[in-house]
Amino acid sequence: MPPVPLAASLGDPAGVGPELLAEAWIRRETDDLPPFFVTGGAQLMAAAARLRGLSVPVAEIFHQAEAAECFARALPVLAGPDGDYAPGRPDRAGAELALASLTEATRLAVDGEVDGVVTGPIHKARLAEVGFIHPGQTEFVAEACGVQPGDAVMMLAGPHLRTVPLTVHVALAEVAAAISEALVERKGRIVAAALKRDFGLDAPRIAVAALNPHAGEEGRMGDEEARLIAPAIERLRAEGIAIDGPFAADGLFAPRQRETFDVALCMYHDQALIPLKALDFDQGVNVTLGLPIIRTSPDHGTAFSIAGTGKADAGAMIAAIRMAGDCAQRRFGN
Amino acid sequence: MPPVPLAASLGDPAGVGPELLAEAWIRRETDDLPPFFVTGGAQLMAAAARLRGLSVPVAEIFHQAEAAECFARALPVLAGPDGDYAPGRPDRAGAELALASLTEATRLAVDGEVDGVVTGPIHKARLAEVGFIHPGQTEFVAEACGVQPGDAVMMLAGPHLRTVPLTVHVALAEVAAAISEALVERKGRIVAAALKRDFGLDAPRIAVAALNPHAGEEGRMGDEEARLIAPAIERLRAEGIAIDGPFAADGLFAPRQRETFDVALCMYHDQALIPLKALDFDQGVNVTLGLPIIRTSPDHGTAFSIAGTGKADAGAMIAAIRMAGDCAQRRFGN
Repeated sequence: MPPVPLAASLGDPAGVGPELLAEAWIRRETDDLPPFFVTGGAQLMAAAARLRGLSVPVAEIFHQAEAAECFARALPVLAGPDGDYAPGRPDRAGAELALASLTEATRLAVDGEVDGVVTGPIHKARLAEVGFIHPGQTEFVAEACGVQPGDAVMMLAGPHLRTVPLTVHVALAEVAAAISEALVERKGRIVAAALKRDFGLDAPRIAVAALNPHAGEEGRMGDEEARLIAPAIERLRAEGIAIDGPFAADGLFAPRQRETFDVALCMYHDQALIPLKALDFDQGVNVTLGLPIIRTSPDHGTAFSIAGTGKADAGAMIAAIRMAGDCAQRRFGN
Repeated sequence: MPPVPLAASLGDPAGVGPELLAEAWIRRETDDLPPFFVTGGAQLMAAAARLRGLSVPVAEIFHQAEAAECFARALPVLAGPDGDYAPGRPDRAGAELALASLTEATRLAVDGEVDGVVTGPIHKARLAEVGFIHPGQTEFVAEACGVQPGDAVMMLAGPHLRTVPLTVHVALAEVAAAISEALVERKGRIVAAALKRDFGLDAPRIAVAALNPHAGEEGRMGDEEARLIAPAIERLRAEGIAIDGPFAADGLFAPRQRETFDVALCMYHDQALIPLKALDFDQGVNVTLGLPIIRTSPDHGTAFSIAGTGKADAGAMIAAIRMAGDCAQRRFGN
């Protein structure tokens, strides 16, 4: 029996999602990608591939089970909503198509019809105009899985580094107040379990970044390290988790220190994303930990300004598809 | 007439400062370093070089003017306080020697006897025990120059990146309140003038990092961008400074975006230092802008745990000496 494939959503069809999925299919053999299919947009996918100068035969399929068989010779696209390809010109119809594609891909994963979902980049404000009420795709997928938003943990992963932001879309002025012992513990546990289950690390080493410069320098610049972060680390260690810190964040991502951990648990968005994008820009994957399904996404946006020009790098999309396949294999054995 | 040399302070003698100065002297020709001399510690310097396995003849000099002549054949050390070399074992006598060496090197620069000063790494808490009342060497040097602490601006510079933290030793919870229009303007002006005068950039391009994730996403996650940062940028642009932003900080240090600016003006310590240390760890230089003298320092600490073992990388010390020489040549024409 062929492996159950991955479902990929288009993302905003005016963005770079469609062309990068086409490029990923072209590179399926050289990059050793697992089979995937796109949910909806067969004509649009064909047009996106053509404009990028790629020879991609599109095979419209009517059931996900057909995908694995035809993947070697054509890019499978599940029959569904479609639209005109207008790169760089986002509109309401495109947002509706993006939402339909995301909804269907997620549903298939939640129903156990596919191993996982790779979500193409959307534009949140545009999706909000057509009824998308979630802060991002992570929360959308979590809700579809019946998982509390706080238990769906965003991890950014690239060749050099994995990071997890403890707080995400929080104004910097409110970050310190949002950090708690309970939050460090809860997310620390989810990260440890997910790296073990889905990433093949028997005893994942977690390094926790400090909140304050120089880790607060013994309380001279903030006391959250001693008051909140260290006690939480202590309790997680008592549970047998290989977690250490808090470490001054500025040195944590230097070459030698990066080798000492498998993932860095960071206190806020930019602390996690600055080093990841500095080191792994075109290869960063956003993966959601703590879900009953596998979900990955390339760690970039719609890039409307370069959509359709052929300039967009497919590295992150390809890495997202490969990572979803690898995680699925470890978790489900497919 | 030989160029007026640079004075280098020992740093804490139990740290890696002395051995790295010895290594820099060894590499003076291959790395094309300008002449420098060390203020005090002749015996200690000789011992540090020996333990590192370096054949460094030390020439004790009694006036800075002797340094340039003998630099080619020996490491010049200005007669002054000395001590025993005990790497990794900091003590009170060592802290006193570090302070004396720093004080003398700075005095020579302030008096115009040398072009600039390269300061070795000190341990702040240990120096505080012997009467050092400043938060760091930057503030010490600024005061010696009669410059307000706020007008001495720390810049971190490596081969890939230059960054300036707008706020430095501030708890994260207090960062947002410390940002003001006046602060952005004041430091923006100092940075623009210094990169022009000392770094040979006719119209330095300054990119300003946002404070909040996604630059606040139009006020949904903080409003400092629109309320404080953008108006300050606007006024600096009206003065003819090539400054732009605020840009979402997470993507600002990715390879392609790094090419669009000469320096990033960052809102807080870790925002500036995380990308610098991730990309340029062993080559980062801390340079103080806005002073009447040139002052650089390797961007690392005393590293007591590896002092005397030969493991410490001299890249940052060498880069600090070269940068001080380059800046001096541009400013003073020596």
